[in-house]
Amino acid sequence: MAEKITSQKENYSQWYLDVIEQAELAENSPVHGCMVIKPYGYALWEKIRDVLDRKFKETGHVNAYFPLFIPKSFFAREAQHVEGFAKECAVVTHYRLKNSPDGKGVVVDDEAKLEEELIVRPTSETIIWDTYRRWIQSYRDLPILINQWANVVRWEMRTRPFLRTTEFLWQEGHTAHATAEEAMKEARKMLEVYADFAENWMAMPVLKGYKSPNERFAGAEETFSIEALMKDGKALQAGTSHFLGQNFAKAFDVTFLTKDNTREYVWATSWGVSTRLIGALIMTHGDDRGLVLPPALAPYQVVFVPIFKKEEQASEIKNYMHKLADELKSVGIPIIVDDDDTRTPGWKYAHYEAKGIPVRISIGYRDVENQTIEIARRDELTKEVVPSQHLVERVMLILTDIQKNLYEKALKFREENTHYVDKWEDFERALDRGGFVMAHWDGTQETEQLIKEKTKATIRVIPFDQPEEEGKCILTGKPSKRRVAFARAY
Amino acid sequence: MAEKITSQKENYSQWYLDVIEQAELAENSPVHGCMVIKPYGYALWEKIRDVLDRKFKETGHVNAYFPLFIPKSFFAREAQHVEGFAKECAVVTHYRLKNSPDGKGVVVDDEAKLEEELIVRPTSETIIWDTYRRWIQSYRDLPILINQWANVVRWEMRTRPFLRTTEFLWQEGHTAHATAEEAMKEARKMLEVYADFAENWMAMPVLKGYKSPNERFAGAEETFSIEALMKDGKALQAGTSHFLGQNFAKAFDVTFLTKDNTREYVWATSWGVSTRLIGALIMTHGDDRGLVLPPALAPYQVVFVPIFKKEEQASEIKNYMHKLADELKSVGIPIIVDDDDTRTPGWKYAHYEAKGIPVRISIGYRDVENQTIEIARRDELTKEVVPSQHLVERVMLILTDIQKNLYEKALKFREENTHYVDKWEDFERALDRGGFVMAHWDGTQETEQLIKEKTKATIRVIPFDQPEEEGKCILTGKPSKRRVAFARAY
Repeated sequence: MAEKITSQKENYSQWYLDVIEQAELAENSPVHGCMVIKPYGYALWEKIRDVLDRKFKETGHVNAYFPLFIPKSFFAREAQHVEGFAKECAVVTHYRLKNSPDGKGVVVDDEAKLEEELIVRPTSETIIWDTYRRWIQSYRDLPILINQWANVVRWEMRTRPFLRTTEFLWQEGHTAHATAEEAMKEARKMLEVYADFAENWMAMPVLKGYKSPNERFAGAEETFSIEALMKDGKALQAGTSHFLGQNFAKAFDVTFLTKDNTREYVWATSWGVSTRLIGALIMTHGDDRGLVLPPALAPYQVVFVPIFKKEEQASEIKNYMHKLADELKSVGIPIIVDDDDTRTPGWKYAHYEAKGIPVRISIGYRDVENQTIEIARRDELTKEVVPSQHLVERVMLILTDIQKNLYEKALKFREENTHYVDKWEDFERALDRGGFVMAHWDGTQETEQLIKEKTKATIRVIPFDQPEEEGKCILTGKPSKRRVAFARAY
Repeated sequence: MAEKITSQKENYSQWYLDVIEQAELAENSPVHGCMVIKPYGYALWEKIRDVLDRKFKETGHVNAYFPLFIPKSFFAREAQHVEGFAKECAVVTHYRLKNSPDGKGVVVDDEAKLEEELIVRPTSETIIWDTYRRWIQSYRDLPILINQWANVVRWEMRTRPFLRTTEFLWQEGHTAHATAEEAMKEARKMLEVYADFAENWMAMPVLKGYKSPNERFAGAEETFSIEALMKDGKALQAGTSHFLGQNFAKAFDVTFLTKDNTREYVWATSWGVSTRLIGALIMTHGDDRGLVLPPALAPYQVVFVPIFKKEEQASEIKNYMHKLADELKSVGIPIIVDDDDTRTPGWKYAHYEAKGIPVRISIGYRDVENQTIEIARRDELTKEVVPSQHLVERVMLILTDIQKNLYEKALKFREENTHYVDKWEDFERALDRGGFVMAHWDGTQETEQLIKEKTKATIRVIPFDQPEEEGKCILTGKPSKRRVAFARAY
């Protein structure tokens, strides 16, 4: 099992694909760029979704559901948005098939052509703001704080499981407000929700900040982003939150009566994260044996594996094991007990390591005799033998420690791979080494574009907490007031 | 508010639409037959989904996710299935738009035509069995017990919110087994899960049984169904479970190595329920004031409404009310407290009655003085004043009683509207009165078809528990061994 995973050093891209296969997360389908999310991958998505959904509800949001299809003309309403989204998309043109005249299979029925083509939603701002027009008359109808869990489609030419797929699962929040301040506060608040989730649940440190104009969402006035660093030194945008100003309200004519009896356009935000987070999890913590899951998101936190050489020991070992397993279950720790006799313990070790299960408990005959257990940690690949009476306490302690350790390791990795540079040749060298490169930038879109062309690096984020400092743009030498985070990115 | 709801007697169809509007469940969108599910309607779907998801997991199933798009050729593989599903569907033919040459909006880019059209899934048997071929080699890979929560699209010409929409939300279980017996057992088991959900959560009695061949799922060997009776006397198919035999295994060449080292086709089931259940809930319990929700599925079980005539009483009443509300919250009862001063108590009564909230608690100044509360039941529209010290106990008792009462009322209604007839004229008269008509049928598809043409009624179900009895077909007079349930249906 484990030997089927290419090492990260040898070929990081192949390692990524191997982990997805060996951990049984997903696989390609016959449909261009669409993946099948397998049960274990979907269980991981369910964990992510449940935690985020709770956080959204705690911050006052409710869920709703809007149509999959969007009339083509809707996209033309917001000039920036159409450039960004209406191009590479799945277009529904007909609503019927008929039997092929040659008797072989079915063909599109030309008589069932739609008057207006429908676009499979790449994102839902347009259809939602068309709806909000009907819902909003006065300030009393505001704010609207809605989230949607949905599938979306963007016709990507080059795809990679979880990171860039034609269809993906995500959530998209769409809120409507009476004032710019309130909308801005909402956009910032949701970025904090994402950052909290990334750091405290995914154990993945993130840079929080503004996107540069080039990297903004199509139709946004301001885009905030959390950016993480993958183990190959590339950055990954893990979540974005947009202050949309009044752009969509103007495009869809959504106004409200203010308390002062004037009529104004509504202010908007949108924010989303997707199944891409699973790709981020894999590349933040994974190693050459496979996935390494933070306990807070692991579908199973502990796996039990029995080890016996003589058949007559089997039932005694299994009884002992199930008794201990029940103890963990009773305190709410999700576990698997693998007592399938057709697989060797070695196979199982490799299998559950590939799946990233945080803790493995092995039980042999000696453990039954001594009332002990052997606990192995997935993060450090260390083992210890402890008295079984300490099982629950010890496992809980280890799970907490793994969660903390994964975050600290990832943070240390990011710190070691964040470079402050002031000369162009250092800039290029740093980008080649990988990681975030903190450099000055003159603030123009032209310069960012030129840098991208020369180095393939983009400004990932202008960090909120970056101190002001006098400097010169890494490319043009023009004055700059703060460093921004450059990187090559997924 | 309430007067905006047409009475059931006056116009049942309009009543249904009015309830959906006044209860804020859903609304039409600009996209043909697609609805927007509003937050309250979606909260109801979340309750349904969470309960069913738990039941599926308790019966050994796991969730996964398969692509939205299905290659056109997949439908042609299973002869029955293509007839049933590949006809009225959304067809994706292109993957790009471009700026219109006239500068106005966007048009489909003819150069971006797909080699093979993609169908937006109307159901996922084909893409899933194409996947199962890769997953199943030997008996050790069986059974596969997978469920998917997803959106599906069927291009319906005449649509009604929840009951028949172009896009709808559902779950579809797809299981693979080594033997026909095991698959049949699974199909029956899942029908029981649905029946349990319908009766004990939705408080909606159902007939369980076989579908006649005319009404079978396209590609199934046997379809089991639960059928409910709506208040206008029409039947509604609330959930189906299919024994698919080896049809899809043969169509997609899915074989497995048996324990005896022979190769055999895999046996299949599929089963599903959808947002249609919300339509069933509305029409099973709703009355002229709106929705009536069974407590087990109500997003909010209790609403608190303060009543005060003098402003100086307001804060005292509200303090008292919030203290009581917190008591209910602390025992896990989901509540709303509506202390919006811009609405009258009368408006609120009508509003929450329309939304079907099971229990309303009104609190006036006299209640503060006497330490009492007024509790109103949505199902019976009765009120009682009780000492506030009995709040939790009394509310829990009432909620349990409402759940039971709703089921019993619906069962009584069904019993009163189930007619046993043996003559054709009685049959026609009974159908016109509405309800289930239990009559003999000669077992042929031709007869069922003829009856449908004459009366618009179909065989809803051949009940599992219908006793054997000698009889004569209601139309042809040919011999029959048991009655079947006819009805006009949604």
